[in-house]
Amino acid sequence: MPDLPEHPREATNSPMSNGSPTVDDRLMLGSRILDLADNLAHWSESTGALTCTFFSDAHRAVARQLRDWFAAAGLASEIDPIGNVVGRMPGARPGARTLILGSHYDTVRNAGKYDGRFGILCALVVLESLRGTRLPFAVELIGFSEEEGVRFATPYLGSRAIVGRLDAAMMNVRDRSGHRLGDVIAAAGHDPSQLPSVARKPEEVIAYLEVHIEQGPVLLNDNVPVGIVTAIAGGVRYALAIEGEAGHAGTVPMDARHDALLAAAEIALLVERRARLEPGLLGTVGRFEVPEGAINVIPRRCEVSLDVRAQDDDVLTRALADILAESQAIAGRRGVRLSGRELLRKKAVPCAPHLQQLFAASIEKANIPVKRLASGAGHDAATFDGFTDIGMLFVRCGNGGISHSPLETVTAEDAGIAAQILRDTLVRMGTWVEPRTSS
Amino acid sequence: MPDLPEHPREATNSPMSNGSPTVDDRLMLGSRILDLADNLAHWSESTGALTCTFFSDAHRAVARQLRDWFAAAGLASEIDPIGNVVGRMPGARPGARTLILGSHYDTVRNAGKYDGRFGILCALVVLESLRGTRLPFAVELIGFSEEEGVRFATPYLGSRAIVGRLDAAMMNVRDRSGHRLGDVIAAAGHDPSQLPSVARKPEEVIAYLEVHIEQGPVLLNDNVPVGIVTAIAGGVRYALAIEGEAGHAGTVPMDARHDALLAAAEIALLVERRARLEPGLLGTVGRFEVPEGAINVIPRRCEVSLDVRAQDDDVLTRALADILAESQAIAGRRGVRLSGRELLRKKAVPCAPHLQQLFAASIEKANIPVKRLASGAGHDAATFDGFTDIGMLFVRCGNGGISHSPLETVTAEDAGIAAQILRDTLVRMGTWVEPRTSS
Repeated sequence: MPDLPEHPREATNSPMSNGSPTVDDRLMLGSRILDLADNLAHWSESTGALTCTFFSDAHRAVARQLRDWFAAAGLASEIDPIGNVVGRMPGARPGARTLILGSHYDTVRNAGKYDGRFGILCALVVLESLRGTRLPFAVELIGFSEEEGVRFATPYLGSRAIVGRLDAAMMNVRDRSGHRLGDVIAAAGHDPSQLPSVARKPEEVIAYLEVHIEQGPVLLNDNVPVGIVTAIAGGVRYALAIEGEAGHAGTVPMDARHDALLAAAEIALLVERRARLEPGLLGTVGRFEVPEGAINVIPRRCEVSLDVRAQDDDVLTRALADILAESQAIAGRRGVRLSGRELLRKKAVPCAPHLQQLFAASIEKANIPVKRLASGAGHDAATFDGFTDIGMLFVRCGNGGISHSPLETVTAEDAGIAAQILRDTLVRMGTWVEPRTSS
Repeated sequence: MPDLPEHPREATNSPMSNGSPTVDDRLMLGSRILDLADNLAHWSESTGALTCTFFSDAHRAVARQLRDWFAAAGLASEIDPIGNVVGRMPGARPGARTLILGSHYDTVRNAGKYDGRFGILCALVVLESLRGTRLPFAVELIGFSEEEGVRFATPYLGSRAIVGRLDAAMMNVRDRSGHRLGDVIAAAGHDPSQLPSVARKPEEVIAYLEVHIEQGPVLLNDNVPVGIVTAIAGGVRYALAIEGEAGHAGTVPMDARHDALLAAAEIALLVERRARLEPGLLGTVGRFEVPEGAINVIPRRCEVSLDVRAQDDDVLTRALADILAESQAIAGRRGVRLSGRELLRKKAVPCAPHLQQLFAASIEKANIPVKRLASGAGHDAATFDGFTDIGMLFVRCGNGGISHSPLETVTAEDAGIAAQILRDTLVRMGTWVEPRTSS
């Protein structure tokens, strides 16, 4: 077990007293976030790689560590029945509404150190540096126990419990070893029947804010450290199958062929061409299989996947319709049969304009260009759609923007900038939230 | 073991006495070929499917059956040390040169009844009906023991022994069970050291003629029963690998991607486009793999196969150069790396124009349109390249031209036409071969 990193005392030196935070302050905040992330990465289910899935030993150790760090920062902290680590900072007055800050601490297999955890640790460092400051609203920092969906093929377990959307039926899903979710929760010493009590009341919540690494190259390529998320993209996934006719590669003339692979190749390129037509639209064929493929046989059957995402549901719907219609036209021209099966459909979740504006004001104040971008990946924030207003801040990744990989990187400088922006945003929120709080 | 089919006596009724063979004669010849093929198909290594590979029990039983049928047709017959079944009809004078007729009796796994065997049985039925006729040249009918290369991944074992190109080193190749070819030959009661004695002397051979099912849809689509092969196509096979960059399907903008799959899709379509530019050129991508393919991951690596064939080596060389150059250009435009490995290169083997002309005269006489086409598949005939002149006649397949499948079909009518054309060609050859025979 790693030692608890020592708290750098300088970070608590009332940073708010200085309207323009220093570069030293920034590096101190940033280095501390990265140190904490390094520490958490010591716990893993696999040797030589970081893997931390729901309620594994490593996962529960990370939860206890976070709880202890939250407590050391002065937060009232606990681990709830779904494994969320919750730290609470009271507001200036009793009964004040709550701002929720959060992200997740579970990981994919062979993960990087920053996906999810960065957001928890960034908020922790910010609340640490605000210790002694009374904001007009309460703040809850939540490290969600489950976002990636690795163990139970069901993502967002932690944040769904918070918004009251983890229903009892879900306790019966099983992992690959056959363990029921409900049993796993009970075996960890929690009472699954208590899960409904985890749900927050929407009328008591001001908003949900999440800082996350971008997991893409946009900020890196644009040379900006942070970006304001405009929406969490919606998406559809399809499995497409193309059936043509097998034949001998040496005997069937080109114009007598019904080659399933060539139809699929046209479809893959069509997906790219269509996605390029509109900004923010993404289209990917990630799987491409010729089950009976042989070097001298004209492919009879080809199976491909389709993943289309957009931050606007209308854009998504139109793009998907175009792709499916044009794919059918390709199949018709080639005399092959196309069939498709929808695997997933997620609506886009917009981020609240007034929260985007708050982030923008803090970024401008720090003399950083204001960059807005959609999130193509899903995040805990999406779970709060319809529950409260959502704001998200992205931090630049290095290494070409790679994520879900040990190659994930964030610089201490960028981490510190993100912390400064988040802190400034919290303080700025304090100036307008309280008047709207009636109770 | 199937009964030996009874010999239909009418077929020996001097068909040559009638300048225009009757439809009855045609159907009798054709039905007999199909009956014999049905009989041979009873022996198989697998239940419920026809599989007959080199020196299996089924294969040796088929050899004995062919030998007996050859003998019953009046041919001096034997099984040679490589398993070829040889039947000899002497020429009108001692020392006359020899015309070789042949095809193979081994099969692929789950084969049809006609690939290879049709040519042997067609020639057998023709020689049967020529019984009592003395041609000015000797005729050898050879049922080659091995053409498909299934057991030892080395094709043409039978015909290579005949042309003296089965060298001693080849005795050391092993099948999947680890058996040496030389040991398999010895276990079957043959002496591998006697293989060189199997080789014929090229100066004693007039030509090699082979009848074979087309294994493609050209004759079917053109509505002609037989076609004259102009050449056995040459071919190249490549394994291509494309390396791009992995990325999250939801976070990497379209214009920042280096998608290996899309480059491969462009290459597959390029192969088709280039092959369509010249008649007789065939290009196929039969294998297409994304080893790490996942629905939400931009493909990093893609591996595809390339098979290009043409009846003219220059056409093939230019097409391959164009395809490789344009593939590199595609890779360059997409910022991915392309590498290729040549797996196979076979030169085209032209059929002798004067033998094509002989077939054409016989076909015209039968009031059938003269259709010429290249063979995209390899055949025993290709082994005779540089040894003697080659002539090949294709017979129409049904079922869309499918082959290497239980769905292979030939009609009795077409089979009979092929036999009549072959018989007429042999008789026609007799009118000009003898003057050139000096000894």
